[in-house]
Amino acid sequence: MRPWADAAARLVAVDGAAAEAARLLHARLTKPAGSLGDLEELGARLSAMAGTCPPPLPSSGAAAVFAGDHGVHAQGVSPWPQAVTAQMVANLANGGAAINVLARQLGVDVTVVDVGVAADLSGIEGIVHEKVRRGTRDLSVEPAMTIEEAEAALDVGARVAGELVDGGAGALLTGDMGIANTTPAAALIAWFAGRAARDVTGRGTGIDDEVLGKKIGVVDGALARHRSRNDATPLAALAGLGGLEIAALAGFIIGGAAARRPVVLDGLIADAAALAASELAPGTSAYCVAGHRSAEPGASVALEHLGLVPLLDLGLRLGEGTGACLALPLVEAAARVLREMATFDAAGVAGRVER
Amino acid sequence: MRPWADAAARLVAVDGAAAEAARLLHARLTKPAGSLGDLEELGARLSAMAGTCPPPLPSSGAAAVFAGDHGVHAQGVSPWPQAVTAQMVANLANGGAAINVLARQLGVDVTVVDVGVAADLSGIEGIVHEKVRRGTRDLSVEPAMTIEEAEAALDVGARVAGELVDGGAGALLTGDMGIANTTPAAALIAWFAGRAARDVTGRGTGIDDEVLGKKIGVVDGALARHRSRNDATPLAALAGLGGLEIAALAGFIIGGAAARRPVVLDGLIADAAALAASELAPGTSAYCVAGHRSAEPGASVALEHLGLVPLLDLGLRLGEGTGACLALPLVEAAARVLREMATFDAAGVAGRVER
Repeated sequence: MRPWADAAARLVAVDGAAAEAARLLHARLTKPAGSLGDLEELGARLSAMAGTCPPPLPSSGAAAVFAGDHGVHAQGVSPWPQAVTAQMVANLANGGAAINVLARQLGVDVTVVDVGVAADLSGIEGIVHEKVRRGTRDLSVEPAMTIEEAEAALDVGARVAGELVDGGAGALLTGDMGIANTTPAAALIAWFAGRAARDVTGRGTGIDDEVLGKKIGVVDGALARHRSRNDATPLAALAGLGGLEIAALAGFIIGGAAARRPVVLDGLIADAAALAASELAPGTSAYCVAGHRSAEPGASVALEHLGLVPLLDLGLRLGEGTGACLALPLVEAAARVLREMATFDAAGVAGRVER
Repeated sequence: MRPWADAAARLVAVDGAAAEAARLLHARLTKPAGSLGDLEELGARLSAMAGTCPPPLPSSGAAAVFAGDHGVHAQGVSPWPQAVTAQMVANLANGGAAINVLARQLGVDVTVVDVGVAADLSGIEGIVHEKVRRGTRDLSVEPAMTIEEAEAALDVGARVAGELVDGGAGALLTGDMGIANTTPAAALIAWFAGRAARDVTGRGTGIDDEVLGKKIGVVDGALARHRSRNDATPLAALAGLGGLEIAALAGFIIGGAAARRPVVLDGLIADAAALAASELAPGTSAYCVAGHRSAEPGASVALEHLGLVPLLDLGLRLGEGTGACLALPLVEAAARVLREMATFDAAGVAGRVER
C-alpha cells in the first residue's frame, strides 16, 4: 500500500469519552465554568485526539514547509516572479524567513521539503529533496498533476509526518511556499466546498482589481474544465486543481492524524489541503486545529466546511506556517490547564452559590 | 511626590520616528508587504515605546495579580461568596490558579499583591502584603474609597511596576482577583467612556437575567450618586466608583509606561484600569497592548475608547492576567520578526513586479 493510503487506513476516530472527561474536569478547576472560552473546547478536542484526559503536552512541535511551483503562474495571477519560490527556499534553509524566526522563539524545528520547485535545488543543503516534478502543469488548461504525481506528493507528506512523529513531535505544524499557490488553493476550496470562484478567490500576496478579476476567471475556467472530465473522485480533484505542495500537505495532515497528533493548520493553503485530506481520509479534520483565520476569503469558507474555529484572527496572509506557529502556544496552554490547574476541592476554594 | 504621581511625571511620549523606521524595515523583510497583519503595527508600536527600531525583545515578562474585595458584593451582584477572593489568593500563592499554569509555560514570574482583600492574609507566604484596607465601601451607596485610599493603591501599583522593571522585566502583564469586581469596572468604563450602564455591564463570571438587571441598576445608581458630587476629577471617579485592585492596576500601568515597557492588558478589569490611567496620566495608553477582547461588553467599549485593537478574541472571561499571558508570545513575535528576519537584499530574494 502507498504510504499515504497506509496512513489513511490507520486513521482511528477521536475518543469522545476523553473529550467528555476533559469537559467534566474543566468544571472542577478553580475558575468560573467556561471562563477560558475557546481554550476549554480545544482542551477537550486535544483529549479526544490523544484518547486520554488530560491530554499530553503538544510540546516539541515540528513544522514542515512544503515548497512547489505552479504552471498557472504563466496566467499572470501573481505579482511575484516564479523564481521567488526557489529563492525563498534558500532563505528558509538559511533561517532568515518569518517561519524560522517564529519557530526559534518556540523551539520548533522547521523541515523544508522541495516537493515541486521549478528549479534545481540539489545544491541547497539542510532541506529535504523529494521533488516529484518541476512545478505543476497549468491547471487552467489541463490537469495540474497526473494521479500518479499527486499520490507521490501525498506520499512525501505522509512520510515526513511519520518521521517527525517518530522524532518526538507532539504537534505538527503545516507550512507552504509556492508563488501563485493561492490560485490552486482557491480552486480546491471552491470544488470541495461547492462554492463559486468569486466566493473563495482573494488577493493573495497583493493584487489589484484587474488581476483579481483575471484570477477569478482562471479559477472559474479550471473548475469548468475539471467538471467536464466526469471524474468526481477527491484524488482527481486534488490532481487536477491542486499543487504538489498542497498534495504533500494533505498527506502530511493524514499522516499526523493517523499518528493521533494535533495538526495545527496555517492559512489558506493548509485549509485547502485539509479539505482534500478530509475527502481522501474522512475523519482527519478531527485532528486539525485551525491556527488562524487567513485574510483570504477562501480560508473562512474552508474552515466553515471543516467545522473548525480558528484561534487567531490577525489579518495574516504570509503562509510558510507562520499562523500555525503563532497559535502553538495557545494549543499548549489548552493542554496545560487541564494537566496543572488545581481543582476547587484540592485548593479549598468555595464554588459559586446556585440560586 | 507620591510614587504614582512621580511615575506620571516621568512619562514621555512614544517615539513616532522609531515606529516609522519599523514600518520601513517591515517593507524590506522577505515577505509580502503587510502580510503579517496586526503583528506589523504591533512591532511599530513596540519600537515607538522603546524609542528604538528594532525594539528589544519583551522577554522576561512579569505578571502582577492585584487582589481586592468590594463592598458592592453585598448587593448580590456576584454568585460567588466574597471569601473566594482570599481563597483564590492562597491558590495563586500555591501555583494552582490558571495564571500560574500559563505563566509557567512562558517562564513569566507572577507577583501576587494583597492590596485590599477583606480578610487577614498575613499568614500567606509568597505574596506581597500591601493592604490599603479590607475591601472597599459599597459604591452603590457611598464612594468606594477615599481619595487617600485610592492614591495609596495607585502607589502600590506604581511601586510594584518599578520593582519588576528593576528586576529585568521586559514587559509587564496586568492581573486581578476580586469577587464582584466586574461591577466597579463597568462603572468606571461607563464614567470614563461616557456610556450607559446597560452598554458596559455584563454577566461577569456567570449571572442570570434577573441578577444582570440588578447589576445594571447598581451601576446606574452609582453613576448617578457620583455625578451628584460635582467632583469630575479622574481621581475622584477612580475613588468613588473603583476598587483597590483596579486603582493599583492603574498605578501599575502608569509605572510601566513611565519605564517605557509594554504593558499587556488582560481583560475587563485591566481595560477599566487603563482608562483611569489614561485620564490620570495622558499618554499611558500608547504603552498598552490589549492582550485580548474579553467576553464582557464593557471591555470592547473601553478598548475602543483607548484606541486599542486586541490580539486575541477567544471568549475569555477569567481575569488573573490569563488573557495577557496568552498574548505575550504574540508580542514577543512582533519584536522578533523585526530583529531577526532577512531583508530581500540580504537574502537575494526578488521583489514583486510592479505594473
